[in-house]
Amino acid sequence: MTSFSVTADDMDAIALGGAFLGTGGGGDPYIGKLMAKQVIARHGPVNVVSADELPDDALCIPVCMMGAPTVMVEKLPNGEEAREALSQLETFLGRKADALICIEAGGLNSTIPYAVAAATGLPLVDGDGMGRAFPELQMVTLTIHGVSATPMVLADDKGNSSVINAISNRWTERLARCQTVEMGGAALVALYPMSGAEVKRSILHGTMSLIKEIGETMAAERKASRNPAAALLKRLDGKRLFTGRVVDIDRRTVGGFARGKALFKGIDEDEGRSFEVEFQNEFLVCRDDDGLLAVTPDLICALDADGGLPVTTEQLRYGLAVNMIGLACDPQWSTPEGLELVGPRYFGYEHDYVPLNQMSR
Amino acid sequence: MTSFSVTADDMDAIALGGAFLGTGGGGDPYIGKLMAKQVIARHGPVNVVSADELPDDALCIPVCMMGAPTVMVEKLPNGEEAREALSQLETFLGRKADALICIEAGGLNSTIPYAVAAATGLPLVDGDGMGRAFPELQMVTLTIHGVSATPMVLADDKGNSSVINAISNRWTERLARCQTVEMGGAALVALYPMSGAEVKRSILHGTMSLIKEIGETMAAERKASRNPAAALLKRLDGKRLFTGRVVDIDRRTVGGFARGKALFKGIDEDEGRSFEVEFQNEFLVCRDDDGLLAVTPDLICALDADGGLPVTTEQLRYGLAVNMIGLACDPQWSTPEGLELVGPRYFGYEHDYVPLNQMSR
Repeated sequence: MTSFSVTADDMDAIALGGAFLGTGGGGDPYIGKLMAKQVIARHGPVNVVSADELPDDALCIPVCMMGAPTVMVEKLPNGEEAREALSQLETFLGRKADALICIEAGGLNSTIPYAVAAATGLPLVDGDGMGRAFPELQMVTLTIHGVSATPMVLADDKGNSSVINAISNRWTERLARCQTVEMGGAALVALYPMSGAEVKRSILHGTMSLIKEIGETMAAERKASRNPAAALLKRLDGKRLFTGRVVDIDRRTVGGFARGKALFKGIDEDEGRSFEVEFQNEFLVCRDDDGLLAVTPDLICALDADGGLPVTTEQLRYGLAVNMIGLACDPQWSTPEGLELVGPRYFGYEHDYVPLNQMSR
Repeated sequence: MTSFSVTADDMDAIALGGAFLGTGGGGDPYIGKLMAKQVIARHGPVNVVSADELPDDALCIPVCMMGAPTVMVEKLPNGEEAREALSQLETFLGRKADALICIEAGGLNSTIPYAVAAATGLPLVDGDGMGRAFPELQMVTLTIHGVSATPMVLADDKGNSSVINAISNRWTERLARCQTVEMGGAALVALYPMSGAEVKRSILHGTMSLIKEIGETMAAERKASRNPAAALLKRLDGKRLFTGRVVDIDRRTVGGFARGKALFKGIDEDEGRSFEVEFQNEFLVCRDDDGLLAVTPDLICALDADGGLPVTTEQLRYGLAVNMIGLACDPQWSTPEGLELVGPRYFGYEHDYVPLNQMSR
């Protein structure tokens, strides 16, 4: 399909699908759903368009929330701050946006663009910058293609804002992260203003369709009283990593990020084995007693083993049983340029990237 | 005098006078002098004008360096980043500045506005926002008069910059301070854009004349092989606090500030007594064994007891002999509003402000 309309009712599925691809980060699907539903109910459905439909000189702007998920679930965005960030960026650029884009998959960050699209009447591009969630703002395929994150606007719930212009996307991350921390740990941002031509060659295409489809699959399976894990594994050509119960979790908010490690005891067919998952906002590394099972930039997605809902790093708690699923990342991420941005060594792990389908087990 | 011209040669005196009133902060006079001399030699003298001469609708912009003095003496500004900050603020406001202002007294921060004034050909207003130096950006009489610090631009030496819009001057300080730290500990800034009418009612008048006169007095005394302390005490109706030698110094850079405490052993007429001075970029509290001698917002100014040059907190080192001089602050600072901004309790000291002339000793 080249373009489709998204209603308030669709947001249930979109928030679920976004949270699944969000690999533990990108915000809480429940909050994202409520916020977007409210805005769409008031302003009407959102038109999602293929990037190919954009004129090359269209101005396209991603909007999202930046911050530690720990805080993103406590500071509820109402969609207004995101509009404010967008509006300030438009003022700075002296031009109105022609379309909005989603920067990452996530329960909140895949729904915020719908809320802003509904409120402004702008179309939303069917794609995103990650195909999953990552913790830092330079971690988008746009960086690989030389698109600048700035000018970027941050806005908080109190009325503070800033416009950053930086010499690199890493510098933008540094200058925006420290202000996000000062703003209370989360800020609404508009960044990576792009032309239609840049959108076409730089984004990951079809992410919004995929998110919706994943969410609809999850909803259908849950309605039929089945855990969606099996259907998702099949649809996404995924790899079952493990089924286990959280036995220990170490979590801290450092420099604006939620970092930590969770230990799992295998259950069902994994009885007797143990597992660990390390995260920084998102799940980044999954191991069992014998070594690596999956590693960034491949996706490590968690589903509640009972209810079948996506589990964010914030929702991990002692005793929770999860199905861990691995998905191959977009081919752009496994290039040398991609791995320099989001490979295991960037995050401080002492091993190279091993693609999911080349893992020994 | 209502207006006067400042040449490259005048910068020797201005850097010295600024550093003296800078109460240990505001940057190094040697660096400030070199930078401003170079720019004035290239572009010609600076016209310093009385605030009363400004049209009420003139746009007046203060420019200065923000950061820990520890860093300000290592990252040498060349005047270009300050022009860049000014130019970006002008672009954001959609209007060119009509005059520049100095935000605080200091060896560097009283000379940077001259460099930018020379390079742009703009007049410099005879006044400043503090009548001394203070560590945080909301600590200006402009805050008392309700002038907003934003829009504010920060620019670093690498080419990064940002424009902040905040709901209060305290919030501006927070959002600018964290970026200053990220930018390497110091940034050039343009802030508090004001109308001529706001300048007239909000600034401290005559500071640039006073700085020049203090510097000229110091130079004349030094030329006559006299320590300037006596002449300055007389001219400024100051109070001799002590003469002592540094016996211990504890200094650390915390959150972008140089904080610490220096202990002194009295010498000459203070033989047998001991003293301590606490600082946060600037000297804030001076005590002897029996208690308080001087406290913020009154000025605590240090002169090298041998050479007679101003001593910044960064230059304090074991064995250095200094003359400590207290000066009464501007009456605006001893009002309840002033003390809320810059009184001892704001800085975490457990005592109230006692004016210099009401100290028991």
